[in-house]
Amino acid sequence: MDIFSAQYARQLDEQDPIKQYRKRFELNDPELIYLDGNSLGALPTSTPERLKQVIDKEWGDRLIRSWNEGWYDRSQKIGAKIARLIGAHPDEVIVADSTSVNLFKLAYGALKLQKGKSKIISDQLNFPSDIYLLQGLIELFGQQHKLELAKSEDGISISTEAIDSLLDDDTALVTLSHVVFKSAYMYDMKTITEHVHHKGALMLWDLSHAVGAVPVDLNGCNVDMAIGCTYKYLNGGPGALAFLYVRKDLQEKLTSPIWGWFGENNPFEFGLDFSPAKGVRKFLAGTPPVLSLTAIEPAVDMLNEVGMDKIREKSLSLSNYLIALFYEVLQPLGYRLGTPTDAGYRGSHVSLKHQEAYRICKALIDKNIFGKSVIPDFREPDNIRLGITPLYTTYSEIFEATEQLQRIVKEKLYTQFSAARDEVT
Amino acid sequence: MDIFSAQYARQLDEQDPIKQYRKRFELNDPELIYLDGNSLGALPTSTPERLKQVIDKEWGDRLIRSWNEGWYDRSQKIGAKIARLIGAHPDEVIVADSTSVNLFKLAYGALKLQKGKSKIISDQLNFPSDIYLLQGLIELFGQQHKLELAKSEDGISISTEAIDSLLDDDTALVTLSHVVFKSAYMYDMKTITEHVHHKGALMLWDLSHAVGAVPVDLNGCNVDMAIGCTYKYLNGGPGALAFLYVRKDLQEKLTSPIWGWFGENNPFEFGLDFSPAKGVRKFLAGTPPVLSLTAIEPAVDMLNEVGMDKIREKSLSLSNYLIALFYEVLQPLGYRLGTPTDAGYRGSHVSLKHQEAYRICKALIDKNIFGKSVIPDFREPDNIRLGITPLYTTYSEIFEATEQLQRIVKEKLYTQFSAARDEVT
Repeated sequence: MDIFSAQYARQLDEQDPIKQYRKRFELNDPELIYLDGNSLGALPTSTPERLKQVIDKEWGDRLIRSWNEGWYDRSQKIGAKIARLIGAHPDEVIVADSTSVNLFKLAYGALKLQKGKSKIISDQLNFPSDIYLLQGLIELFGQQHKLELAKSEDGISISTEAIDSLLDDDTALVTLSHVVFKSAYMYDMKTITEHVHHKGALMLWDLSHAVGAVPVDLNGCNVDMAIGCTYKYLNGGPGALAFLYVRKDLQEKLTSPIWGWFGENNPFEFGLDFSPAKGVRKFLAGTPPVLSLTAIEPAVDMLNEVGMDKIREKSLSLSNYLIALFYEVLQPLGYRLGTPTDAGYRGSHVSLKHQEAYRICKALIDKNIFGKSVIPDFREPDNIRLGITPLYTTYSEIFEATEQLQRIVKEKLYTQFSAARDEVT
Repeated sequence: MDIFSAQYARQLDEQDPIKQYRKRFELNDPELIYLDGNSLGALPTSTPERLKQVIDKEWGDRLIRSWNEGWYDRSQKIGAKIARLIGAHPDEVIVADSTSVNLFKLAYGALKLQKGKSKIISDQLNFPSDIYLLQGLIELFGQQHKLELAKSEDGISISTEAIDSLLDDDTALVTLSHVVFKSAYMYDMKTITEHVHHKGALMLWDLSHAVGAVPVDLNGCNVDMAIGCTYKYLNGGPGALAFLYVRKDLQEKLTSPIWGWFGENNPFEFGLDFSPAKGVRKFLAGTPPVLSLTAIEPAVDMLNEVGMDKIREKSLSLSNYLIALFYEVLQPLGYRLGTPTDAGYRGSHVSLKHQEAYRICKALIDKNIFGKSVIPDFREPDNIRLGITPLYTTYSEIFEATEQLQRIVKEKLYTQFSAARDEVT
């Protein structure tokens, strides 16, 4: 059967062993193909009810009493559930603040612990916010500190050698995204972490594009620290709280620079001298936003129920299918693949490059053209990112999106749109 | 008529010019008297519907498109509404992170700007989390920096002289709570700010116990910086996001140490060199939690509709009534007043002290004794805090709570409870 056919895609959907999970998301618009779960995950069907309970019962009825009835420990309890997805112990992960603030806290702690060493290493494909944070820390620590970014030869991947060439005895910290936001390049976490440790540096992984999308084994890779967001593949809702991981034996040594009462040992004794909480709780700062915190739980439960191995299997099956279609019908039209062909180094989205990427995205989204709106996201200057969320993305959606990508260029349908960047995101 | 009577209280309720607002909160339990709005504000009746819209429509249906349809500017838009409550310009306030993280960002910025000066001044009645944060900053800036706490003579108030005596040319920053969390002592913001400026120091006010409870005039007092939480008198829900204020002309000079993408000038261009956003937006860091952010708006709208003058009038009428009842029936039983008698220096809660405060609180909360649960909060070692939220607290509730306080001690009803601290909060 021709792989570029609706029938073939439908057949793959029918054979999908986890196809039943699609129904557990509020994706009911027949005119929408949502391929942006790598930016904002869809709404799980059980989340509104859970939030109604938090709003009406926990806040409305029980009021302040809820702090003793579940709120106080919730950051740790949901953290422990996320821990199962990333190969960590339950007491090594906590939900707190934003990814940016968590990176600040842990990277600061790492630099303080590594006093005398002055270098931070990241890479030029890292998510800019992470790089901004590190630039801010360089400013904070002063002129003797410096940030070096490993370069990419192909704009898609960063070689282990590129990291190795920057590593030296003066390196305090290496912080990288496990899955790179534009290209979906996935680092070999074990190898990189080993090399970093070999030079006496600490390793901090940003799991934002990895958690819930690919299996992660923080303990198995002996990772020191990690951070990640929950609004992508964890489907925690817009701006949902982030999480952080600190390896058990490092928790006592590492200190957060933000000494807030939720990170204090006995916050409700209201003593005047800060004493950090024991364990991972010390990395909390202020009172956690309970609504945005609770919203994370339903999809995390679902991911644990399915298991990351099945998630990965479906993810790669979908991205392999998309890449096969790319070679078949898109490459001849000037599209380029911005994602590793080697599945072992690929996360769960596929980036297609085209010089008209911005206008192509506009055409994909406009449902007047084909009667269906396909939502990817555009990333400057020429990336069309197609997110694959194994719990709800279907083969038929991948097929239809590819068909639209083909026709938009073939029939020059993008020319009716302006290339002016008229939206904030 | 006897002021210590249910009839008198009912009469006051009937005459209350803003009594209709009580109905706009979900306070439907006839067996509950909630006097803890100074810790967690009650749920406004319009909030669940607003949140349902965010969850089902903005997240569920519109998905990532909502960033262009209202999410991106929401931190600023709600900030502008809060600005009206605290005498600030719309572009001087933004909703972001937690109170702790905001204090960290602004106090760090202030210390950096005041390079060469080494002293931070606060007071020993300040909320401990604020003091912890400042201790963390002292640790961060190094040994030449120091924190000095103004002392209280009476455990209730801090004299202007106590602040003055610590102020000198080496003072970089003074940070105080406008309304003190235990005693409800309210500083004379204008005088203190003037004295601080006279010595060349910067002034940062924590408005957590003031915003929505008392009129605040940041611009009129020429205040440099302010922070505050929204889950108390702004009724934004558990752990709702905090806000921060930076005076317009100071915004360009002050820098945040946490360089996150939402504080960047063009976050969606994904450039690799951080350039701070113009204006107050530069103090954002990561992606804001939209659910907990949106929950703030309904009550802020309500407060703006009523106006802070009427709020203050009702607040003082209620606290004066409570204090009158205290003198009448509680003082003779060993209760002491932990709150200023001078209304000009009083926020919107009343603290009663008693050596059996913890067990008295247990008895108040237990509804088996009088058929009604009165919820205050206990603050170590001997404070019973009775929160007065002008939008929903009634005179009858104040009367009934006082009656319970009287009987609990008179009839030694507290003795059936243990003094062991068995709950987290």
